[in-house]
Amino acid sequence: MALRGPLSRLLRSTLSSCQQNRSHSVAILGAPFSKGQKRRGVEHGPKAIRDAGLVERLSNLDYPVHDFGDLTFKHLEKDEHFMHVPFPRTVGRANKLLSGAVSGAVGAGHTCIMLGGDHSLAIGSVEGHAQQCPDLCLIWVDAHADINTPLTSPSGNLHGQSVAFLLKDLQNKMPEVPGFSWMKPFLSARDLVYIGLRDVDPGEHIILKTLGIQYFSMRDIDRMGIQRVMEVTLDHLLARKQRPIHLSFDIDAFDPSLAPATGTPVNGGLTYREGIYVTEEIHNTGLLSVMDVVEVNPTLGATPEAVEATTSLAVDVIASALGQTREGAHVAFPKIPEPKEDTELRL
Amino acid sequence: MALRGPLSRLLRSTLSSCQQNRSHSVAILGAPFSKGQKRRGVEHGPKAIRDAGLVERLSNLDYPVHDFGDLTFKHLEKDEHFMHVPFPRTVGRANKLLSGAVSGAVGAGHTCIMLGGDHSLAIGSVEGHAQQCPDLCLIWVDAHADINTPLTSPSGNLHGQSVAFLLKDLQNKMPEVPGFSWMKPFLSARDLVYIGLRDVDPGEHIILKTLGIQYFSMRDIDRMGIQRVMEVTLDHLLARKQRPIHLSFDIDAFDPSLAPATGTPVNGGLTYREGIYVTEEIHNTGLLSVMDVVEVNPTLGATPEAVEATTSLAVDVIASALGQTREGAHVAFPKIPEPKEDTELRL
Amino acid sequence: MALRGPLSRLLRSTLSSCQQNRSHSVAILGAPFSKGQKRRGVEHGPKAIRDAGLVERLSNLDYPVHDFGDLTFKHLEKDEHFMHVPFPRTVGRANKLLSGAVSGAVGAGHTCIMLGGDHSLAIGSVEGHAQQCPDLCLIWVDAHADINTPLTSPSGNLHGQSVAFLLKDLQNKMPEVPGFSWMKPFLSARDLVYIGLRDVDPGEHIILKTLGIQYFSMRDIDRMGIQRVMEVTLDHLLARKQRPIHLSFDIDAFDPSLAPATGTPVNGGLTYREGIYVTEEIHNTGLLSVMDVVEVNPTLGATPEAVEATTSLAVDVIASALGQTREGAHVAFPKIPEPKEDTELRL
Repeated sequence: MALRGPLSRLLRSTLSSCQQNRSHSVAILGAPFSKGQKRRGVEHGPKAIRDAGLVERLSNLDYPVHDFGDLTFKHLEKDEHFMHVPFPRTVGRANKLLSGAVSGAVGAGHTCIMLGGDHSLAIGSVEGHAQQCPDLCLIWVDAHADINTPLTSPSGNLHGQSVAFLLKDLQNKMPEVPGFSWMKPFLSARDLVYIGLRDVDPGEHIILKTLGIQYFSMRDIDRMGIQRVMEVTLDHLLARKQRPIHLSFDIDAFDPSLAPATGTPVNGGLTYREGIYVTEEIHNTGLLSVMDVVEVNPTLGATPEAVEATTSLAVDVIASALGQTREGAHVAFPKIPEPKEDTELRL
Repeated sequence: MALRGPLSRLLRSTLSSCQQNRSHSVAILGAPFSKGQKRRGVEHGPKAIRDAGLVERLSNLDYPVHDFGDLTFKHLEKDEHFMHVPFPRTVGRANKLLSGAVSGAVGAGHTCIMLGGDHSLAIGSVEGHAQQCPDLCLIWVDAHADINTPLTSPSGNLHGQSVAFLLKDLQNKMPEVPGFSWMKPFLSARDLVYIGLRDVDPGEHIILKTLGIQYFSMRDIDRMGIQRVMEVTLDHLLARKQRPIHLSFDIDAFDPSLAPATGTPVNGGLTYREGIYVTEEIHNTGLLSVMDVVEVNPTLGATPEAVEATTSLAVDVIASALGQTREGAHVAFPKIPEPKEDTELRL
Repeated sequence: MALRGPLSRLLRSTLSSCQQNRSHSVAILGAPFSKGQKRRGVEHGPKAIRDAGLVERLSNLDYPVHDFGDLTFKHLEKDEHFMHVPFPRTVGRANKLLSGAVSGAVGAGHTCIMLGGDHSLAIGSVEGHAQQCPDLCLIWVDAHADINTPLTSPSGNLHGQSVAFLLKDLQNKMPEVPGFSWMKPFLSARDLVYIGLRDVDPGEHIILKTLGIQYFSMRDIDRMGIQRVMEVTLDHLLARKQRPIHLSFDIDAFDPSLAPATGTPVNGGLTYREGIYVTEEIHNTGLLSVMDVVEVNPTLGATPEAVEATTSLAVDVIASALGQTREGAHVAFPKIPEPKEDTELRL
């Protein structure tokens, strides 16, 4: 699976402009990394999602798919806690590597699908994307806001702090975490929308409110319906101008009954149809540039069926984000075929 | 269960007008037939639905229920493929028999419930219904459009082509399939509405679009809500005039978590409440004339509970289509009863 | 768990006014009682809900929680049927005891959480509440209307008749059931709203319609959406004046897939999110005064997981009714914390 040659070339690619024609090809990048949190197993996410038939499913769509295999991450032996944050240098280094790979893939004109791994990987993924497309906007679909700073985080885990590393608005609230000197925050709070929140820490709540970030909790989805939520989301991000979308999709946005194989499930999540609707609407903008699919942990399902349901759901949202529709498409038939003479003669 | 005498009389019945007073009695017709597709077991659908308590449940409603037992279908020994379509003459002959039975039941003044069997049976069911009620309209509740022609069908299976046999609009797109010379297409595309689509083949998509057929995919239901979908459906079909409704309900319209025992399940289907809402609304028109309930395959559930859930769901939608309500009904009590003297004395 | 001392004091408390500052403390009262119906096991509900972590969960909220333990109910040896109603004197006596306890808790300034037990306990709970707050209004969340009289009840069970004992409007329709001479009906039909109905007996239907009671069946929720249902509910009850809310929540309001461990499950119930939305909206009024959570029967789940799902759901709705939010809250952080000099030096 790990095609080192092409991946190696991708990492060396140096195109600098944000491609306009993103839908001409798809790059799949595996990021088997789990040090943004403490549970084992989420590093097997990329393999599990591929084994659920990802590439085959995308082959039904009408553009070429390139699987660049998995990145190789190193666990640093000497990586002491920063405050109560574990593995800061390991996470920082992994994200630096990922950032380069995503930047390379986007620079080469691909729509990039990043398979995690834990959600700390969004730091590198969004950063690399922004290298090519500085005007990107970010849609974060997740049960959690992942916007703690090391000063507010109850657990210390970096997968719950990814967004805090990205936001310019939090620059003076963030300590200098070792391992992250390679990057600077670059995203404005107004360029971010959350969908699916239902487990928000107190420190996160004050950040969301202070920065005036647009978010749609499950309660908001209950109130407004998913159709209206997507309308407001896309209007908020795209009304001023059309620009590349980074979709960071944590599988735990779905209800645990649909996606049980994940590390921090929370009841009352998105239905299958709501999740697919979100990705359909994003596809329909024609602006999807990078998509993260993270926190699929195949070691956590109670049964093989539970794991399979989760990985298959990951494949479904990726296929939907890339254009698979529920209403069909008539690529194969420009018009209704008519019977020919010889067909009728076969009667 | 197979009451051959009454069924035999039903088949000979020759009333010719579409009854106005459809709700005075209900006829149940079993159609244990599976040659419209390749999986075994769907021929046991009628028995499984009856065993789930269908007749008992309908006895709570306020009209007589007549169970006419099962039709007896013959598998023709010499029935070669037509193009890649299997069993064409067997399917054609079964539908001819079913057509006569449905026509007889409707002609005799019954609201007819046809228990499949696979969805190819809708050809005969709708055709027989139309013999009595040429102005009928058709509501097709299904994950699939079943509107392939032999020229577009990926599988060749006739249960995915039923609607193509019915539509006048497709007459010149259909080859002459052996076994179907007894019938001609009779339905206009504007007299058909689909609800629940989410797995539409490319050839079906071009047919739906070319013919301008009104359909509500799961995406449409997500956008509009089931209340509005039913409003538009009934307005589309009945605004010009009140006329008999043929409801063809494929159990796979429901989400596979609710109806697992079926041959071609597709994720993201109707919820229990949406399915019941559809049938309630159709009941409330007072115009339901024939209902097909098809593709219940009791050999396909992973567990006995999965099969029971599916068959019990079939009973629920039939009961709801025939008038069982979630809000209660006060048939038994014209007014609130008051205690009598002797009741109080019993203190 | 059974703190007889404090409970005993609570029962003797004689404050007479309906407290305005209900949110300052919470009283938990267990009512292990099952004689309002015929199945064993619902008397274990209070223990099962506590074991699912109720008190720990409420400790995250910002007011003190007092668990007053369980009431002790006596089963009367001589308690013959009244008409076909079983255990009338036992049920009446239990409710008299519960009434005193609830009245004491409300009188002492607590928001009271009553853990059943079967739903016949609402008679005493609402009655005791009304002793302190005669102008209360009642929101009854349930699959069933529980408004049969002994003259209409198909089963005779008193848990299906609780509301009939409360309503002034039904006074001349109710026989004098032995065991209930200690109370008089006190509630007006207009001060009651039902949410979640989907299994309404014929006699109940005529009562609902004759009395013009505001109810939202599952069909109404399908039509209107839960957001609008709560808007109309609260407007109906509170538009004229702000007043204490009694929320009587039968766990069978939820879909059986979520709350299987209950005596009379009915398909097509509330989703998790709808149930939580109901309690969030009620919390947001600031007027919740007493909440019953009833019909959790830990002996009825098919598996330990089924029981745990049900009890955990009970904890979730209680926590939500008492202020736990899905959007977070920033109690702990008045503002976003900033890194200090010495934190940075630790780099």
